[in-house]
Amino acid sequence: MAHASQTSPVGILGGGQLAMMLGEAAQRLNMPTSILERNSASPAHAAHFPVTIGDWRNPSDLKTWLASLSIVTFENEFVDTGALREAAHSNLQFFPSLDAIDLIQDKLYQKEFLKNAGLPVPRFRSVSTMADCEACADDWGWPLVLKERRMGYDGKGTFVLRGPDALDGFWSHYHAGRDLMAEEFIPFATELAIQVARGKDGSVAHFPVVETFQSNSICLWAKCPALIPRNDATAIKQMASTVINQLNAVGVFAVELFYTASGEIFIYELAPRVHNSGHYTIEGCKTSQFEQHIRAVSGLALGETSLTYPGVAMLNILGEFDGQCDIQSPSSLANGHAALHWYHKQDSRRGRKLGHITAWGDTANAALATAIEARKEIELCPKK
Amino acid sequence: MAHASQTSPVGILGGGQLAMMLGEAAQRLNMPTSILERNSASPAHAAHFPVTIGDWRNPSDLKTWLASLSIVTFENEFVDTGALREAAHSNLQFFPSLDAIDLIQDKLYQKEFLKNAGLPVPRFRSVSTMADCEACADDWGWPLVLKERRMGYDGKGTFVLRGPDALDGFWSHYHAGRDLMAEEFIPFATELAIQVARGKDGSVAHFPVVETFQSNSICLWAKCPALIPRNDATAIKQMASTVINQLNAVGVFAVELFYTASGEIFIYELAPRVHNSGHYTIEGCKTSQFEQHIRAVSGLALGETSLTYPGVAMLNILGEFDGQCDIQSPSSLANGHAALHWYHKQDSRRGRKLGHITAWGDTANAALATAIEARKEIELCPKK
Repeated sequence: MAHASQTSPVGILGGGQLAMMLGEAAQRLNMPTSILERNSASPAHAAHFPVTIGDWRNPSDLKTWLASLSIVTFENEFVDTGALREAAHSNLQFFPSLDAIDLIQDKLYQKEFLKNAGLPVPRFRSVSTMADCEACADDWGWPLVLKERRMGYDGKGTFVLRGPDALDGFWSHYHAGRDLMAEEFIPFATELAIQVARGKDGSVAHFPVVETFQSNSICLWAKCPALIPRNDATAIKQMASTVINQLNAVGVFAVELFYTASGEIFIYELAPRVHNSGHYTIEGCKTSQFEQHIRAVSGLALGETSLTYPGVAMLNILGEFDGQCDIQSPSSLANGHAALHWYHKQDSRRGRKLGHITAWGDTANAALATAIEARKEIELCPKK
Repeated sequence: MAHASQTSPVGILGGGQLAMMLGEAAQRLNMPTSILERNSASPAHAAHFPVTIGDWRNPSDLKTWLASLSIVTFENEFVDTGALREAAHSNLQFFPSLDAIDLIQDKLYQKEFLKNAGLPVPRFRSVSTMADCEACADDWGWPLVLKERRMGYDGKGTFVLRGPDALDGFWSHYHAGRDLMAEEFIPFATELAIQVARGKDGSVAHFPVVETFQSNSICLWAKCPALIPRNDATAIKQMASTVINQLNAVGVFAVELFYTASGEIFIYELAPRVHNSGHYTIEGCKTSQFEQHIRAVSGLALGETSLTYPGVAMLNILGEFDGQCDIQSPSSLANGHAALHWYHKQDSRRGRKLGHITAWGDTANAALATAIEARKEIELCPKK
């Protein structure tokens, strides 16, 4: 299972589209990668990267894979850090650290960390009874947000309860066996995100603040730069620095934020990895989030992060039906003002991220309009 | 051709979707309307409003239609005011006045009016030679915007020239016989609009500031409230008041604006009528722009204009093919959080506005996401 290469490859746990795009960046840097993925047909496979088929929940698979590696990074924070600690040899380094992953995996610990760091977060509490939830609603008002502490993503495990009846229904049908936390509901006007990188030498580089748009908690698009006052963008960059410095992390993190009509900022969630909100950086920034992450974890200097166009936008291509999906070649991709990234997923379903389009223009909105035009050229069809 | 009714009907020149929605509002107020439209199958026909078939460029059609009316208003500013003046009897009132229509019809006069009123507009000049255009580009830089002074809408008649070569090409192939003006290019971050109404008593009522999103100069969506600082919204309301007071106009006007990343505001264009950017007001405001216009021109008190939901969005349904188009009934319209307005156009083509969806929610973005979900339920198909 070991790979022949002069330098030890960068190990990536997981073979989805994030691993694929990390692999593409590493390849350009002549940096070998080694990907562990349990499925035999993943985006990383489709892109012809060396993939070790194995289950990271299986100690023997893990141990064999880790044996040839000295650096491991993640495309997904929902890993078994206990299993990784056991299987790791003494010369192995994880970026970010397993301690950082542990903290971020648990949304309650993550929020406590942010709050203790003096960063603005919605009010939150651990809850274990219905009375706990009622007390939160008494203090913060309805709606009340309940979240599973672990494993939630794309809105899974997050419940916005509109009133006592909804809480009642939730509690009688859903809560059993789940570790929950409650959060006040923030009526945000828009969502923002920022990618931030930290190198092994402690240097920090921010990407621009990007504006994201979600429907049913799934990102439809991101556009950059976000239309917020310069002071707010500066404040967000400082928050991102605080996060990554306090965690002493190496690599790229994403910070997701709420922005209200009156200009209030709340950190909503951290991702200890490259993130969908930063896909625009491939064409849109002088260094992409993927290259930046590979640079950070392999000890290279961080790259320049400014925009390559005045405005850039990314539009996700979401599955429209259940069943393996193919794509018809676009005719012009908005006359060359857009790029396509298709993830070659074998397992497709309605709402799943199957690819994305990046477009550029004079402004973020112009770029988004171009991305929307480019999307119209692309037809999803069942795979033959 | 006269219509039997107790009170004299409100005459509406044109039978498109704006006339249809004005008619719907008038009907609820028990205010009869009389619509002049040359096509025998218009949105106003489809909605069963009394339509007089006639061409407003034909003096005899016009005279006959006007005979039974004492109030006339417009769904379109590109009318022949000379013909209207000639055909009008002495008791006839036009709202807005034909003088106001004359001024707004000509984009150069319109901009001069705005500038003289002390309102912020992009720099502009009348141009009649290529040297004039070159002088503008020397002063303001590229790109340079050239506009036909009359008849342009949805971007038609507007040309963004990126450099001297483009100007050359434009001048040798396109300019002949056109009255042109030049404008500096504003790299706006977003477009805004506001509806403002003025009654016969001089009272003024503003709708909220709405954010609009265009692709190829065609509005894809509008969402309200716009995410701009409160001070800027107040400034925009004051600008709208200045416009409508200085024109001494009666009825609803739309003011379209550019908003830059540094918070600069420029008035881009006036519409002396109800406008696509205000369609959200049907469900989204306590009084719709259509009802407000009927109230104003018929001398009723202006209605309350505040939002009925914290956030509202409007998504245009645009033609996807050339040829008469039908719609399949939506299954749930976003579970009741959205409404559909279908215009029943007989003549459909790619990119044409065929209907719209309004949706609502906790925020403008949430409403837009709901509108996008509702749009997915709607399939356009060739009419059988």
